[in-house]
Amino acid sequence: MKIAIDAMGGDYAPREIVRGAWEAYQESGQQIILVGDRSILTNELKQLGDNYAGLEIVHADEVIAMDDAPAVAVRRKKNSSMVMAAELVRDGHASAMVSAGSTGATMAAALLRLGRIPGIARPAIASVLPTENSVTLLLDVGANVDCKPKHLVQFALMGSLYAHKILSIEVPRVGLLNVGEESTKGNELTQDTYTLLQEAPVHFYGNVEGRDIFKGTVDVVVCDGFVGNVVLKTSEGLADVLMKMTSQAMRQSSLAKIGATLTLPALKKLGKKLHYSEYGGAPLLGINGVAIVSHGSSKALAIKNAVYRARESVENGLISAISDSLNNNEHKVG
Amino acid sequence: MKIAIDAMGGDYAPREIVRGAWEAYQESGQQIILVGDRSILTNELKQLGDNYAGLEIVHADEVIAMDDAPAVAVRRKKNSSMVMAAELVRDGHASAMVSAGSTGATMAAALLRLGRIPGIARPAIASVLPTENSVTLLLDVGANVDCKPKHLVQFALMGSLYAHKILSIEVPRVGLLNVGEESTKGNELTQDTYTLLQEAPVHFYGNVEGRDIFKGTVDVVVCDGFVGNVVLKTSEGLADVLMKMTSQAMRQSSLAKIGATLTLPALKKLGKKLHYSEYGGAPLLGINGVAIVSHGSSKALAIKNAVYRARESVENGLISAISDSLNNNEHKVG
Repeated sequence: MKIAIDAMGGDYAPREIVRGAWEAYQESGQQIILVGDRSILTNELKQLGDNYAGLEIVHADEVIAMDDAPAVAVRRKKNSSMVMAAELVRDGHASAMVSAGSTGATMAAALLRLGRIPGIARPAIASVLPTENSVTLLLDVGANVDCKPKHLVQFALMGSLYAHKILSIEVPRVGLLNVGEESTKGNELTQDTYTLLQEAPVHFYGNVEGRDIFKGTVDVVVCDGFVGNVVLKTSEGLADVLMKMTSQAMRQSSLAKIGATLTLPALKKLGKKLHYSEYGGAPLLGINGVAIVSHGSSKALAIKNAVYRARESVENGLISAISDSLNNNEHKVG
Repeated sequence: MKIAIDAMGGDYAPREIVRGAWEAYQESGQQIILVGDRSILTNELKQLGDNYAGLEIVHADEVIAMDDAPAVAVRRKKNSSMVMAAELVRDGHASAMVSAGSTGATMAAALLRLGRIPGIARPAIASVLPTENSVTLLLDVGANVDCKPKHLVQFALMGSLYAHKILSIEVPRVGLLNVGEESTKGNELTQDTYTLLQEAPVHFYGNVEGRDIFKGTVDVVVCDGFVGNVVLKTSEGLADVLMKMTSQAMRQSSLAKIGATLTLPALKKLGKKLHYSEYGGAPLLGINGVAIVSHGSSKALAIKNAVYRARESVENGLISAISDSLNNNEHKVG
């Protein structure tokens, strides 16, 4: 099984992408196809050492930029590393794709080249967020800004299967993101979705509120892509500001400065826990093939972990599980 | 000018509510009407000292609980401290009301007793959030879970006036909360709102993303009440979890423990900055009268600050400014 990586996508591409692929190969023997400029990638690989027999290069002479309009870029840049990575999966040369490029463009490339799983109306982007003691899967975080209740039900189903198969949660609890816990709460979308989720083949916990996301009240939190995107970016922004304020506060007195030096290792450990790299990117659920988007600022560790999540998704039959669940509503998740 | 306070509403009522009122009176001479059980409130006041000539009590023998259904509670509990506080404003005995009780019930009581400012379709709850260097006003944070573009435009107008008159921002920049910066981004609601905001009498900055809220990119962030409520609760939850994780991390080694002791004063200062009490509650904008909801967990400091925000709203003519702006679209804010 090979995994295709868009080696030119991301803020630290190609160096950190190549390094992440290289590390995954050294650590686990996972075979990888790096897609991008052959001479640049060869040069990067050579700097890492001699042992890269399992790392293949497929040449692509275009790159989709972060600010390219997704659908347009995918249509025009047919020889881009991202589009070609998707084609390697479509044509059976690779079993999964990973990109740290534009999330929108990766979704567009995956949709146009791999298509949807039959029966899935709208693929979703799922994000794995850290909680006090574990993780929560939040979806959709941006693929679908206007949703219908039936879309959210499919997100619940796909999220539940991902949590079960990849995050190893026996019976994932699914919560509907809402403004209150009571079943009568919410806007039109969530009220109608609530009713449908009670009948869906998932372990429906009920409504959850914003504060439940990082508390870890449930394993899967379902919402439309507008709300999910705002939640994700608000959280990133708040965490950044809090970290900055903490470090500023700690530089305000010399005693605090000494204290900060002593607490630094503990805080770094925490930062690592909070960091997305640990979890290795956001799966595009509903695409008829395994596709994972890593954060634009991914370094080698994030890419390596994305490779592992991609491999687990293939090995654990995520796509066929989603496909089967659509054709068999009796199949209760977990 | 008197301010009516629902002395029985909130997790720490009546003790901390009475204390907050008492402190505001001692500090500024602000006259206050405490609404609630006369014997309990008299007893609380007596414990604080002799000087409470400017603190009046109006007896109310019912209390609206946090989990009472808002509209039902307001209709049934006509003698509740919250409803009676609203009636004191309606009847001209007080110039503003403050409650730390249920936000939904306070909005219902204010709506039913004070009504809307003529021309305002939907009153909104605005929340003042701390940013790196200042604050941002976010609205709506929960009053209206299904909104139309024209509602969001009114939120922008009211938020802008509040930021100008109460937060002392000369020309408040108004951002539309969205999933991307480009004008074409968003769901149906935000795309249509964007067009309207370009013509509205506010300083429209354009779209902002979740990460801009705590960064302080703009002074006023406009969104529907579903999104705003989720943002607010997610942020509270994340901040809680981060604080808990930080303190856990700091207890994991003895060096870190010593460090933590030294950094504690700096961190406490930061905590204070982040704490809502500094800002004194959420104004209900669009209500035909000044009404402020304090957080359920408000202690004396939060109540005192809410009293000051209420007084400033009255003194600076917030209600008539909103009313005027609806009748005079030429009036550019700031």
